[in-house]
Amino acid sequence: MPTIHDLDTPAVLIDVDRAEANISRAQAHADRHGQKLRPHIKTHKLPYWAGKQMEAGAAGITCQKIGEAQVMADAGLTDIFLPYNILGRAKLERLLALHRRVTLSVTVDNAVALDGLAATFSDPGRRLDVLVECDTGMGRCGVQDAGEAVALARGIEAARGLSFGGLMTYPANGQPEKAETFLREARDALAASGLDCRRISSGGTPDMWRTGSDTVVTEYRPGTYIYMDRSQVRDGAATLDDCALTVLATVVSHPTATRAIVDAGSKALSSDTLGLSDFGEVQGMPGATVSGLSEEHGKLLLSGSARVSVGERVRLIPNHCCVVVNLFDKVHLISGEKVLETLPVAARGRSD
Amino acid sequence: MPTIHDLDTPAVLIDVDRAEANISRAQAHADRHGQKLRPHIKTHKLPYWAGKQMEAGAAGITCQKIGEAQVMADAGLTDIFLPYNILGRAKLERLLALHRRVTLSVTVDNAVALDGLAATFSDPGRRLDVLVECDTGMGRCGVQDAGEAVALARGIEAARGLSFGGLMTYPANGQPEKAETFLREARDALAASGLDCRRISSGGTPDMWRTGSDTVVTEYRPGTYIYMDRSQVRDGAATLDDCALTVLATVVSHPTATRAIVDAGSKALSSDTLGLSDFGEVQGMPGATVSGLSEEHGKLLLSGSARVSVGERVRLIPNHCCVVVNLFDKVHLISGEKVLETLPVAARGRSD
Repeated sequence: MPTIHDLDTPAVLIDVDRAEANISRAQAHADRHGQKLRPHIKTHKLPYWAGKQMEAGAAGITCQKIGEAQVMADAGLTDIFLPYNILGRAKLERLLALHRRVTLSVTVDNAVALDGLAATFSDPGRRLDVLVECDTGMGRCGVQDAGEAVALARGIEAARGLSFGGLMTYPANGQPEKAETFLREARDALAASGLDCRRISSGGTPDMWRTGSDTVVTEYRPGTYIYMDRSQVRDGAATLDDCALTVLATVVSHPTATRAIVDAGSKALSSDTLGLSDFGEVQGMPGATVSGLSEEHGKLLLSGSARVSVGERVRLIPNHCCVVVNLFDKVHLISGEKVLETLPVAARGRSD
Repeated sequence: MPTIHDLDTPAVLIDVDRAEANISRAQAHADRHGQKLRPHIKTHKLPYWAGKQMEAGAAGITCQKIGEAQVMADAGLTDIFLPYNILGRAKLERLLALHRRVTLSVTVDNAVALDGLAATFSDPGRRLDVLVECDTGMGRCGVQDAGEAVALARGIEAARGLSFGGLMTYPANGQPEKAETFLREARDALAASGLDCRRISSGGTPDMWRTGSDTVVTEYRPGTYIYMDRSQVRDGAATLDDCALTVLATVVSHPTATRAIVDAGSKALSSDTLGLSDFGEVQGMPGATVSGLSEEHGKLLLSGSARVSVGERVRLIPNHCCVVVNLFDKVHLISGEKVLETLPVAARGRSD
């Protein structure tokens, strides 16, 4: 069996033991609090892991793009949530085709998106579940108050081929209480209008750990939790030992005592800082951080006892694992240093 | 013939008229100053444009990865520069195979990389040209002074299958004088040791415009100049009307008067700021900038008279075109609004 020493660099390594432990831990937490888990596949983009997440007890999966959902449906996944406003004839036709194959649900936050769905989905015998997206502090998509949520929900229910499925939010990081307040008010306003929230879906790997059973949320859509990364460690959702994804890189240059260069730059690690002051760190080597990136160069700043030499291979823990996966055509599943399998990142590049 | 209105979003559009004008303008500048142009294909990753650059008068092309060079060699490009330390048995074997097919040159900045090349290339009848990389202020790879350059050049000349090809640098942005001083000193020190610099290669789209004929540099390796982007506009190397690459996106949400959301996020535009305070802007709509990114959401901040509506399609000018290309599997060549051709990004993902 090949080992990581046989791989050329840069390469994405996924420690399956860690990833499987991360899946189990999150599912157990959700089970304990009576919530459903609907993992977001944007992180791994692999049918392999989507299947493992379902086996562990997930209620379904979440995709962000129709192209991703098509890949997952082709691979046999049967319950897919697309928390996005789907607009335009081409996308609506693809959505309809997908709806005929799997149990599908989507979101809207505006009347234009709702009108498009209403005009496309007309079969009362197979209604599309549509949830209303709420902006609970993130400042991205979403209705701004409970009144808007009620108005949209009524519009959904009025459409022949649609069914109001509940509420969805992606909460601002670290503000689950704010999301809770918004969702509770919207739920109550909907109930007062005779509209039942069958699902209240929230997101985010860090937030799912902060809330227990005392919430209106019925399902979480964590993505990053399967691989974890430095931003999650910073947020307290993981330790460095939980990080399953690393980028194997080679030290190609060592121009000064404190500066070394690896062959993984922004086209391997991405430029995402997520509020961190650097771009990654060397696994198992405190004091060796990625202090700068060019497209194909990563600059290691060496402090304390951190030492590397030219030709040496290091494993980098990125700030944000989801965008790293999106940069590579394949990932290597490993256990210890053994390479168990190399998988194409099937849903990568399915950006429409 | 299809138009951009027939494309689904997000999609990368390349205005061929602008790109061709950018190629001509740079080649004419280089010709006027008696310098060679060796365009860096990292920006477009397409044999199509590499061929056009050669037709316009380029001396050869530059690739950053062996995988990219293999794609270009397969497409018929015959003179390829890889300004990178190539390390490890697998990469050295691939480099040797490439050397047998095309006119190849590489760089080193350290003895380990040199030893690897010397052990791999042993045919004095077909020597590999090796240039010495100099750190002239960028603080990335490169020897730190002229003495180190001379020592490495001597090592190259001493190797049976290698030939000293000259000096290479990627100058710190906006500091061509600093690079000039370093390169001149190194060239003179090499000459004093009986070593001739056949090529002195510098890089960077902004820098090539700042220097004229009065330089030791004999060739430039600009990449971005073909498409241009907001960072080049900021640096004075282009105007917004020179920007050939845009990302076609759909407005999917408009939650508040000043905030709209498009379906192009960091997985379409990348998180590169390159020192800018935002992530892109809407072409032809002053006051509409991309103020924030999630993976699949771009947040438009609307000020002044900028207005968009849900369902509308906009064209975004990114901060950094090179990393955008790397995120997409295909690009659409357009003239006006006509789609002339859709090309797979052949060298994308060839990261090793």
